[in-house]
Amino acid sequence: MTRQQLKDLAQLSRSKGRRQQGRFLVEGVRSVEAAVDAGAPVEAVLVTAEAAGDHRVAALLERTGAVVHTVAARDLDRVGDARTSQGVLAVSRSVVGDGAGPVDAPVLLLDGVQDPGNVGALVRTAAWFGVSTVVGDEDTADFENPKAVRASMGGIWDVALVRVPDLGASLDRLAGDGVALWGADLGGTSVTEWAPGRSAALVMGSEAHGLSDAVAERLRHSGGGLVHIPGAEGARGVESLNVSVAGGVLLARWLG
Amino acid sequence: MTRQQLKDLAQLSRSKGRRQQGRFLVEGVRSVEAAVDAGAPVEAVLVTAEAAGDHRVAALLERTGAVVHTVAARDLDRVGDARTSQGVLAVSRSVVGDGAGPVDAPVLLLDGVQDPGNVGALVRTAAWFGVSTVVGDEDTADFENPKAVRASMGGIWDVALVRVPDLGASLDRLAGDGVALWGADLGGTSVTEWAPGRSAALVMGSEAHGLSDAVAERLRHSGGGLVHIPGAEGARGVESLNVSVAGGVLLARWLG
Repeated sequence: MTRQQLKDLAQLSRSKGRRQQGRFLVEGVRSVEAAVDAGAPVEAVLVTAEAAGDHRVAALLERTGAVVHTVAARDLDRVGDARTSQGVLAVSRSVVGDGAGPVDAPVLLLDGVQDPGNVGALVRTAAWFGVSTVVGDEDTADFENPKAVRASMGGIWDVALVRVPDLGASLDRLAGDGVALWGADLGGTSVTEWAPGRSAALVMGSEAHGLSDAVAERLRHSGGGLVHIPGAEGARGVESLNVSVAGGVLLARWLG
Repeated sequence: MTRQQLKDLAQLSRSKGRRQQGRFLVEGVRSVEAAVDAGAPVEAVLVTAEAAGDHRVAALLERTGAVVHTVAARDLDRVGDARTSQGVLAVSRSVVGDGAGPVDAPVLLLDGVQDPGNVGALVRTAAWFGVSTVVGDEDTADFENPKAVRASMGGIWDVALVRVPDLGASLDRLAGDGVALWGADLGGTSVTEWAPGRSAALVMGSEAHGLSDAVAERLRHSGGGLVHIPGAEGARGVESLNVSVAGGVLLARWLG
């Protein structure tokens, strides 16, 4: 690879670089395996000579149809995170859509979920339970952020991913299609009584502030509403669950 | 504070320092608030002059019975993580026991959960659902690791925390007391059919390898067994759920 190509790839750790180039990085043996085995649009695989000598990596390189570049370890480290890549990374074309096409239920929507680890874990959980589409607004961490990709553990290849400026239009369209809109909150229906059916959408709010007002307002008029996960009496110190844990509890009840 | 005192506190970001000194750091306004409001054994609060001027921090400093030290921002940054502490950190005496005393059910046991963020999220979830005791083995990340403390969001003050060299003796004692032992796995009873009752214990295994063989063996003879969370058909890319998400799903079903 040329200096310039490596420099371009290094830009993919940042949101701006990913947007400009329309591609992103997949780091580490397990993540690259998941991409290759899912038929992801992988353009290239970069590998160090040392990693290529590994049995599992060698098998992976034989399976991929993408161009394989053997690069020096220091060059690979300039592109990705050395600890994560362990000598292997793939470059994939973006898989995130803009939501202009139809959005199939069951849908999970993320309303300002800021931590890439949470976004990735939510995509992983959504894939596990058979969610069709995960939609993120512009305050939600990028699905193709390296930490989100890693935390999704291959889930990004199993669900349709959509990114929109804000969730309003998506929610209005879903409601127009007869999809019941639900949002995770600290009040409303208890998850133990909750049975939304498959033609529904669930919104998870931000780690610090929960659902935005505009989103909560829309849920009231959609045949859905708010759903909460009751805690034990006397859990004084803890005010809420982690957003990916809460998402897991709700998706398990809904689709499990 | 003297140079030496600050140097000692800086050792608390490491496991060895915490073990030697029997105390740990609580960083950031929310976490220190949770500690003070839960009556945690806080020895001292360190705050920058700038942070002390904040309304919320000032109220917090009035509530705590601990000694308050105003320190320079660069000194605080030497002790804790600047991004996390936001000018405030507390020093608490250790709250982790050695399991020599009685261990009350419901119990959550961690069998080599290595990521401090997962350990903290599991403690947070355990506190939310009213688990009495969380036990970690020596391959599990330290409950008092700064990342685990932060991820627990105050949960460490609501549950009894125990650290043991390995889980074998704890499981044998629980089984001897008639507590049913369950372990999260990819097979066994489906969570949708699972109803362990309160006098039970649940073991979560490591992120990469699940339950250790020695633990899985013990579950078979305890009136419990293995429990799994079924995924959707065709979720090809994703092999499992994140351990804190799986823990949330199981605890919600068990105690929710």
